[in-house]
Formats: sequence, C-alpha cells, structure tokens
Amino acid sequence: MTGWVVIAGLGPGNEALVTPEALDALDQATDIVGYIPYVERVEPREGLTLHPSDNRVEIDRSRHALEMASEGKRVVVVSSGDPGVFAMAAAVLEAVEHGAPEWRDLDIRVLPGITAMLAASAACGAPLGHDFCAINLSDNLKPWDLIEKRLKLAVEADFAMAFYNPRSKSRPEGFVKALKLLQDTAGDSRPIIFARNVSRPDQTINIVPLDKATPDMADMRTVVLLGSSLTRIIERDGAPLVYTPRSVEK
Amino acid sequence: MTGWVVIAGLGPGNEALVTPEALDALDQATDIVGYIPYVERVEPREGLTLHPSDNRVEIDRSRHALEMASEGKRVVVVSSGDPGVFAMAAAVLEAVEHGAPEWRDLDIRVLPGITAMLAASAACGAPLGHDFCAINLSDNLKPWDLIEKRLKLAVEADFAMAFYNPRSKSRPEGFVKALKLLQDTAGDSRPIIFARNVSRPDQTINIVPLDKATPDMADMRTVVLLGSSLTRIIERDGAPLVYTPRSVEK
Repeated sequence: MTGWVVIAGLGPGNEALVTPEALDALDQATDIVGYIPYVERVEPREGLTLHPSDNRVEIDRSRHALEMASEGKRVVVVSSGDPGVFAMAAAVLEAVEHGAPEWRDLDIRVLPGITAMLAASAACGAPLGHDFCAINLSDNLKPWDLIEKRLKLAVEADFAMAFYNPRSKSRPEGFVKALKLLQDTAGDSRPIIFARNVSRPDQTINIVPLDKATPDMADMRTVVLLGSSLTRIIERDGAPLVYTPRSVEK
Repeated sequence: MTGWVVIAGLGPGNEALVTPEALDALDQATDIVGYIPYVERVEPREGLTLHPSDNRVEIDRSRHALEMASEGKRVVVVSSGDPGVFAMAAAVLEAVEHGAPEWRDLDIRVLPGITAMLAASAACGAPLGHDFCAINLSDNLKPWDLIEKRLKLAVEADFAMAFYNPRSKSRPEGFVKALKLLQDTAGDSRPIIFARNVSRPDQTINIVPLDKATPDMADMRTVVLLGSSLTRIIERDGAPLVYTPRSVEK
C-alpha cells in the first residue's frame, strides 16, 4: 500500500458545502487526523481509524500524519473551511520542511474547501465583491504590531476585509484594539458583519454600522467582514443585502 | 409558483469541486442564466431553460434573472468560482439596488463556491496560508491608479496576494506595469505562481521567483498568486510545495 497525506477542507459546517472531492478522500482514507470537532464530522466505518486531537497541537498532529503516511497509510488531515486559509495546510507543510527528508517524497495533496469568509459573504450578499484582504486577528503566532500595521494599510487601500479568529477568552483585548483602530481610521459607518456559526442551523448574521459595533459582538465562532468605503446596504423587509460594487468611479 | 434567484458558484471547473448545495439549486431551477461557458456546464433537462449570454453584459443578465423571478420562475445565475469574488453576486445586487422596488422583496440567495485562488493555492501547497489580499487587475471598472495604490500598500503590508483577471487581449499593458511595480517594490525573489485552467485536466502550475517572472506567463485563464516575504519553497522530486508560514517572529 502506498501512503499519502491529503489535507482536506470540510467547509464551514453545513454538509451540503463539502465538495465531492473531499468526500472521496475521506472514503479512501485509513486514518483521519484533526482537531476534535472536525474529526467528529467524519462518519466512522470499519477500516478507518480516527485520531482526534486538541487545538494548538497543529505541528504534532502534522508530524503524526506524515509518519503514518510513511508507513503506507492513507491519511486525511481534516480542516474546517479551506485548509489553506488559516488552517492545517501551512502547518503540515511546515512539518514537512523541518521534518524527515523522506517526507518530501510523500504524495501530499491539499483539497480546497469553502472558507468561512466566503460562506459569510454569501449569507449576506457580496460584501467581498471587490478587492479585499483576509487577516487573522490572533497574535498567538505573530506580533500584535504587525496586525495593527496591516489593518491601517488595509483601510488606506480601501479593501473590504475579512477577519478570522477575532476574539477568544485568552485574548479578550485584541479585538477591542482592532475595532477601535478600524473605527478611528475608517471613520465612517460602513457595514461590519458578524457571522457566527456560519452555514450551521444556528447561524446568526449581525450587520451593524462600523461606528456602532462593539467588541462583544465577536467570539471565536465568528468571522467578521468589514465593507470598503463603497459598500452598499440594500434595505428591505427581512435581512438587508450587503454588497461591494464592482466599479470604482474613474 | 414562488420565484427566486440563486446566484451559485460552480467552482473553478472540476465537477468534483461543485458543492451539493449548488447542485441542488440547479436541480430545482426552471431557468439558468450566465456567461456562455458556465451555462454549458449545466446538464440540460426537460423543464429547464438555458439562457447563455456573452461576457460584459452582467447587469443585463442580472435584470433578466430578476424579471424572470418576479414572474415566478426559479432562476439560478451561474458563476464560476465563488459568485462573491469578482463574479456575479455583486452584479445582481447592483441590479436589485437600482432596479424595480419589488425586486427587493424577492427571495435572493448567494451560494458560495470554490474560488480560483483557493484551488490554485491548494494545487501548489498553501501560499495563502497567512494574511493575504485578493485584487482584480482589470481596470475596466476602476482607475488603474487605484490598482497601483493597492499593490503598493499590499507589498508594504507584506500580504500574500492573489490576482484575478491579470491580462487580456484588450488590456495587454496592465500586467506589464503591475508585475514591474511588484518586482520593484517587493524587490526579492519570493515565489509567484501562475495557475492556468486550475482544477481542469489541462491545469498548469508555473512557480517562478518574482524577479524572473515575465508578463506573458499570465492570460485571462490564469490566476496569479504571489507569496509574502516569508513564503517558503520546499524543493523535492516533482513539483515543489509552496507555503506561507503561520508564524511571524515576535
């Protein structure tokens, strides 16, 4: 048996957003590795071993996957969303680069998925409909100053923005600072969208003017989208639609 | 019959990347609207009318979809990739905002899809594995100066970058200027990735150092990814793996 490692994105939570390509990889796997709630999304079956692990052990988990593939196993590392967007693909490749030389010769593939910001954007219209950026607001692995620098430049570039990992119990202050910076520099009432549990039955979409947003509107289950200066709100009965126009006046 | 409009993303081309949610919408539709090559991806069947249209008629197409939904039809506007990323969702919502007031009361939904940059990123590893931005390089609908401003600020922010619509026959000079700006301002040999026909059988992935890239490497079927200053290349037998690390030294 020839082993392989596939890093597969399971999308934001709704099973109707999992690609057939990812499901096919799960069908062929002998071993599933990943963060506990993502491994729980995989149907158990004979011949399949599940290896759930805790958060914050991404490199250990990656090395485990690569070791098993070296032994001939067919390993799927499951990620939520898209594995290449603030998820497991970069961790596995970091483990490859710094790991056993023979790991480089393994069959390693990344399968894309629906990342949270695209599901959140779709859920309220098209706020990322023009140039945009995606920023991880956690400073666990980078200096806070870099986050602030990027936020300022993103406002200057007038990007729409998507923020991952806005706030956690262990980092309550970061989003307070980020939101204040955005309110001070953008200085207007462009819409900010708090999309919690996006695509799941308990999804909530909270759209507020930036100057009315408060830090408690976000938690670790929230992806936050911020419009550009041109983003529009279409009011109507029921939930409004938000979009960033394709055009900028010449 | 109650009409609706669904704007659905069919992903970058590979049918294994179409979500079950999008397929379900196609199954329920009475009418399909979209750019000719995307409508061609929909299986004809009894009771389904296909309305293919040419490029650059996004607003006419959107109005047509909304009119049909007003008449009780179930209309899917098909988009490649994700409809919210440089695709049809913003166009339909623009038509809603400026169109008949009763269009606001229609059931309008956007279904996310795998956008080209995520498929391209997966095909070579995880070059968008840390903070990144996505920029449409076409100046059909915005001033060229704004594109240059965003490129400069994105380099300063040290974002990884994804570029859509890099080059067309009618705009041969834009990518020449964009590439020169990136080479001059980034000033290093970080990897740039030219992903053509991504996810299709004739996919090509060309990874070169930024200072060796030439404008002819891109066309309208190419999505271009550029690493940040920290992006790594893992050399090995066969195609190298490219990834942007999750960490920045504190």
